[in-house]
Amino acid sequence: MEIYVLRLGHRPKRDKRISTHVALTARAFGACGIYFDVNDEKLFESINDVCKRWGKNNGRCEFFIKTCNWRNMLKNFDGLKIHLTMYGMPLNEKLYEVKKHKKILVIVGAEKVPSEVYQLSDLNISIGNQPHSEVAALAIFLDRVLDEEEFKINFLDAKIQVKPTEKGKKLIKLQNSPQD
Amino acid sequence: MEIYVLRLGHRPKRDKRISTHVALTARAFGACGIYFDVNDEKLFESINDVCKRWGKNNGRCEFFIKTCNWRNMLKNFDGLKIHLTMYGMPLNEKLYEVKKHKKILVIVGAEKVPSEVYQLSDLNISIGNQPHSEVAALAIFLDRVLDEEEFKINFLDAKIQVKPTEKGKKLIKLQNSPQD
Repeated sequence: MEIYVLRLGHRPKRDKRISTHVALTARAFGACGIYFDVNDEKLFESINDVCKRWGKNNGRCEFFIKTCNWRNMLKNFDGLKIHLTMYGMPLNEKLYEVKKHKKILVIVGAEKVPSEVYQLSDLNISIGNQPHSEVAALAIFLDRVLDEEEFKINFLDAKIQVKPTEKGKKLIKLQNSPQD
Repeated sequence: MEIYVLRLGHRPKRDKRISTHVALTARAFGACGIYFDVNDEKLFESINDVCKRWGKNNGRCEFFIKTCNWRNMLKNFDGLKIHLTMYGMPLNEKLYEVKKHKKILVIVGAEKVPSEVYQLSDLNISIGNQPHSEVAALAIFLDRVLDEEEFKINFLDAKIQVKPTEKGKKLIKLQNSPQD
């Protein structure tokens, strides 16, 4: 299964940190890449920097961050387009249908999303119907659709890795990049 | 099961939006309340405003947002203290143990967390060992420990509620507040 994320309505000043969390969550929970409709060099650099150190090749695909024209993307994407919104239908009711597809675009908006997005998406899906966070919604969506991939994911080209521990922090350096 | 969230290291300017997402996720995913170690009136107001409109009484407890002294809280809390960190042990390995408890404090830090927190917590638990987001981590933690409460939660004192729909947005006004 290939899942791509489309982050809509990013405002570089205001959304810098939330959008960073959205992108990192996409990577850590097994998405193949994330598209922004706005170029934000600093944000892209910081995500690419994480990819360099922690890896981007998860064995199924190589995580990327790119810009796109969102309307063209929504019109031309050759897979299932799912808009995450608190107004949508509960994920549990649609999960079976979602899992039939091999290629998915998940759309997560910042504050307000053009109403066109509701129409251009194949499904409008909610992770609960309360106001919360696109980061939380994306995490639960990817967790369900990719079967808890966040607990199993392994980046083949990582230079560093965590060794889980009861107290404190343990990092392992890997030999993936002899030229460094 | 009562779960409280402790948000550590909030910096009002820098963390305003992420901390808002943490607090909204806590509420929407069934936590009973959230403590901050820093007072941030604007943030507290915006969360209390959500509670007024969308409700705070989830049938088990009334969601609150408060300040506290984090060190005293960690020393005196009479339940299980769990620090969410990418360096900790996988949630899946500890879930059985966690679920034995009736009262839990979940600690989620901003950027850097004092090493004391790792020591004062009963468990250091990871939602995957990749860098991502405390919002995503909190969402998955609450989802697992409260058995998908985010899909079932119902606020008894809500004035508005979403009616899930395939396309667009539907809001229902409720009769909870005749004085308004």
